[in-house]
Amino acid sequence: MSATLFIGIAQLVTPGAGPQRGAAMRALTVTENAALLVQDGVIAWVGAAQDAPAASTTHDLGGVAVVPGLVDPHTHAVWAGDRLADFEARVNGVPYEQILARGGGIRSTMRATASARVDELVALARPRLHALARSGATTVEVKSGYGLAFDAELRMLQATRALQAEVNLTLVPTLLIHVPPTEGRDEYVRGVCEALIPQAARAGLASAVDVFCEREAFTVEETRRIFEAARTHGLRTKLHADQFHAIGGTELACELGALSVDHLEASGDAQVAALANAATVATVLPGVTLHLGLPAAPARPLIEAGACVAVGTDLNPGSSPTFSAQLALALGVRLNGLTPAEALTACTVNAAAALGLTDRGALAPGQRADFLTLHSRDWRDLAYTLGANPVRDVFVAGQPWKDNA
Amino acid sequence: MSATLFIGIAQLVTPGAGPQRGAAMRALTVTENAALLVQDGVIAWVGAAQDAPAASTTHDLGGVAVVPGLVDPHTHAVWAGDRLADFEARVNGVPYEQILARGGGIRSTMRATASARVDELVALARPRLHALARSGATTVEVKSGYGLAFDAELRMLQATRALQAEVNLTLVPTLLIHVPPTEGRDEYVRGVCEALIPQAARAGLASAVDVFCEREAFTVEETRRIFEAARTHGLRTKLHADQFHAIGGTELACELGALSVDHLEASGDAQVAALANAATVATVLPGVTLHLGLPAAPARPLIEAGACVAVGTDLNPGSSPTFSAQLALALGVRLNGLTPAEALTACTVNAAAALGLTDRGALAPGQRADFLTLHSRDWRDLAYTLGANPVRDVFVAGQPWKDNA
Ligand SMILES: [Zn+2]
Ligand SMILES: [Zn+2]
Repeated sequence: MSATLFIGIAQLVTPGAGPQRGAAMRALTVTENAALLVQDGVIAWVGAAQDAPAASTTHDLGGVAVVPGLVDPHTHAVWAGDRLADFEARVNGVPYEQILARGGGIRSTMRATASARVDELVALARPRLHALARSGATTVEVKSGYGLAFDAELRMLQATRALQAEVNLTLVPTLLIHVPPTEGRDEYVRGVCEALIPQAARAGLASAVDVFCEREAFTVEETRRIFEAARTHGLRTKLHADQFHAIGGTELACELGALSVDHLEASGDAQVAALANAATVATVLPGVTLHLGLPAAPARPLIEAGACVAVGTDLNPGSSPTFSAQLALALGVRLNGLTPAEALTACTVNAAAALGLTDRGALAPGQRADFLTLHSRDWRDLAYTLGANPVRDVFVAGQPWKDNA
Repeated sequence: MSATLFIGIAQLVTPGAGPQRGAAMRALTVTENAALLVQDGVIAWVGAAQDAPAASTTHDLGGVAVVPGLVDPHTHAVWAGDRLADFEARVNGVPYEQILARGGGIRSTMRATASARVDELVALARPRLHALARSGATTVEVKSGYGLAFDAELRMLQATRALQAEVNLTLVPTLLIHVPPTEGRDEYVRGVCEALIPQAARAGLASAVDVFCEREAFTVEETRRIFEAARTHGLRTKLHADQFHAIGGTELACELGALSVDHLEASGDAQVAALANAATVATVLPGVTLHLGLPAAPARPLIEAGACVAVGTDLNPGSSPTFSAQLALALGVRLNGLTPAEALTACTVNAAAALGLTDRGALAPGQRADFLTLHSRDWRDLAYTLGANPVRDVFVAGQPWKDNA
């Protein structure tokens, strides 16, 4: 098997492999003048350049900083239609109820998405995934959730599968139970548990099931039923919780061993304590904070309490048109109070853990060779830069990622 | 003279020419299926495609939205050294006094910049200007102000002149009197008035003189002396004021007919009223709000009162590493409460007015043919998009801008 030695690394920076909690999130390993050996898409060796083993091929990166590929653990990257009129109306002070009443809001995205063919969804999502990749994301979670009707939900997941076949990134598909139907709610939840989840699981279309647990969405009891069905069919669970009200979803998710709870803007001491004492990752979404001007999730109290915090873009048309994993990282510093080191950990190993993945996010032997070169020799430019892309090249499993958008 | 007719414009969007105040900031003209005739770098005609005059050359833009080139009216794009350690320390909770005491802060940028050669400053600033251009900026103001010593201030301005000779953008150089010396303050101000300003004016190195008027910087009385010297030597004036304390700088600038007052985070009713009743442009800088987590300038009260509001990046290493005019526009919506239409006006004709320019910023006959195509058919994507670049092509005086970075 051929091995490639990457040299010309002014600074190689990595968190420890696997999820990092609390103060460990700040414990990066920084190696100046480093080298990285890749074999079969996996890191075989990493260390100081002068100690590097021989390799059949050498690739000189030109003296820049190298960090792990970013993992975006929360996107709704598959949608049709747009929300530009809603955006303009909201900024002009039109209340959301009125936007909904005139046919806008999430229901308009659901109508457009439910009526799109799989190939249309693929064409619309492709440039979004390319934008995320250019920003440094080498693994991207993609949720369904705008379909409502089961066939439309499955089409969204099929679009993600089709995209996986063409983009040289890892896409992680999640079945999201997002919006309760206006009537027949109990029957809908039963159908989710007895038909949709089994079907998605059987077809291998989803790795996990996610629920939007909120006053206006699904209850804690409904969430529990859905999570139990997911477990029965071998799928992991994730949760949208505490976005507006802490109604108990976070506590339930921690109790049931969900991979992650995402949002957390309304989390209080009880929810912070639950996350600090569970393996469940706390995923914060600063793009929503910026776009909607809402409070930020309490990332600092979570880290001080010992939780495992991740950051995602929440890329979606209504509440976070954030097309950059790097910007999400940079906003995590500004809006959630993460340090640059914590933000790097949050966007790599911890984001991977939020997807149930422990094989990536660190530059260490045995990990996937997903990594980034920066334009800079100092990795902190990744967290510092606003509005330009500090990422020079993206490597996926040791191969340069090419933008064929 | 050869003329080029640009067709394939799904939507052409422009504010009115010249500075727009108050509610007029929202009055965009939107032409669907438009064409644009350019002759000698100037717009000769604009209107519906079916009414377009004949031209020797036709350029099909492929059915996208076209907006005026953005004007970035406030940057400190020439600097040496970096502030990454300061950034990390600040986010880790180290007080600014302590950062200064350990040799960081603005003094470190001043040391590095003052000791750099002109060609070094040029090489460092070039990629920053290219990033701004890619983000849609076709005119960029560039301030001195890290030199302190007069020869270092002049080197910064010479770097901007050298950059102007190579980049196909308009650079507008400003002499910024930024930081008072630790001793000999009165003598320094006298030297600024009697030596630095005359020399910069004689050499044609600056269009305007700017002062940082603040408790910790220059007083209102010092600002008045410097403004009078600027006027004597034929230079316009601008002011950094009300960033932390409203000490009267805004009122002075309005009284003396300054082009703009920039920052305004600490402006109250009196300052809003002064700007509403003066030709002076109120320039807000949302990148600083995001990067430092400080209050946003009161753009809504300013517009409601009838002021002329502009938005700039304030690109600088300490308080706004914002390398995108588009992001500044998008942040003006999120952080300052501008509507998308107001933000477009703020970043085009009003930003031009903040530089004393009325020949650009609108797509109207007689204006410079500086314009942008978007990837989208809907111009609102310019304000909506976070973290990706909605700008497809940049045209400067009717010619495609090329990134040779
Ligand atoms: Zn979400
Ligand atoms: Zn400034």
